[in-house]
Amino acid sequence: MKIITVSREFGSGGREVGKRLADRLGIPCYDREIIDMVAEKQGLDKNYVEYMSENDIRLFYPSTIGRSFYAPTLSAPYAIQIAATEHQIIKELSLKSDCVIVGRCADVILKDQNPLRLFVYADEQSKLVRCRNRASNNENLTDKELARKIKEVDQKRAAYRKSYTEHRWGDYRGYDLCINTSGKEIKILLPGLVSYVNGWFYSRLN
Amino acid sequence: MKIITVSREFGSGGREVGKRLADRLGIPCYDREIIDMVAEKQGLDKNYVEYMSENDIRLFYPSTIGRSFYAPTLSAPYAIQIAATEHQIIKELSLKSDCVIVGRCADVILKDQNPLRLFVYADEQSKLVRCRNRASNNENLTDKELARKIKEVDQKRAAYRKSYTEHRWGDYRGYDLCINTSGKEIKILLPGLVSYVNGWFYSRLN
Repeated sequence: MKIITVSREFGSGGREVGKRLADRLGIPCYDREIIDMVAEKQGLDKNYVEYMSENDIRLFYPSTIGRSFYAPTLSAPYAIQIAATEHQIIKELSLKSDCVIVGRCADVILKDQNPLRLFVYADEQSKLVRCRNRASNNENLTDKELARKIKEVDQKRAAYRKSYTEHRWGDYRGYDLCINTSGKEIKILLPGLVSYVNGWFYSRLN
Repeated sequence: MKIITVSREFGSGGREVGKRLADRLGIPCYDREIIDMVAEKQGLDKNYVEYMSENDIRLFYPSTIGRSFYAPTLSAPYAIQIAATEHQIIKELSLKSDCVIVGRCADVILKDQNPLRLFVYADEQSKLVRCRNRASNNENLTDKELARKIKEVDQKRAAYRKSYTEHRWGDYRGYDLCINTSGKEIKILLPGLVSYVNGWFYSRLN
């Protein structure tokens, strides 16, 4: 089974890398679709699931254990349930067919299946440009505000990862290939990436 | 001009990656040859040049500035001279033809020429195996001693880099592509890597 997981810095084009890679390999790519599946399975609102699954699970827990007046928030059981469902869905998808999974700590969740773990990153300027070109809801932000937003999303991702795994987000040692998309058009990098990925899976068989 | 620099963890096979990549691209690969060139130019012993150019330049300097009884060691002027000659030779080689340069902070020295900066790494077990298979002078070391040696070489590389540049050795942000060779035969990864490298340089032109 060929499983490719994509971790990425916000604005680095990691999602595009995942989608294009899946297209070239003729396999499905799962990204936000996982949120939708969790919401459906749990009968919860998509936005709520997204919010809960993007934040450090410890946010929903008391900061001091052992003091009875710091009770867990009402959200804590949901956070665990959502994480567990997400985990289960990722596992099921990975057993169904070859696929690309973007984000959601899939590299750690699917560790036993020996996925190719990709990390996509870029310099600050390139991430700013990519975010500007992409999202209409960034229109009103100054460069400084947008740069802060990019940083905040990555900090959240790092915290989310930290709450579920022992591997530090962005530590190259946890990935098989790290690609820098600064100033690059992803579609031009793709044929080479596909070729590298094929060689990597081939070498696993030999 | 296509310049590829290879930074690597000790035992990760970075040197092999550099040599094979250069072979496939039909361009020269410079590694220890640079030491030889520096030695010849300066009329110094190769081993001495190697030692001096692998250690943090600050080793040869007083640890406390402003106290007259901590004079620079006798080696300090040589360390600077060697570093300057190495710098000059790397620059000259990069202007002569497309090439691969392994180590020696070439990625930073040649920054203005926009090289493809490769970083090669592997997990501890893979580095142990590679070192065992490679070098006869590791024969008498236990696994624990060899692991310590690997770590020490990397620490020296990090310190060397720190003494010359602002970029932290092993920080993925300073590289364009980071490849994990754990459990992989490098020759099998090569066709994919060549393809990625070609795409990367092509994208620079477009």
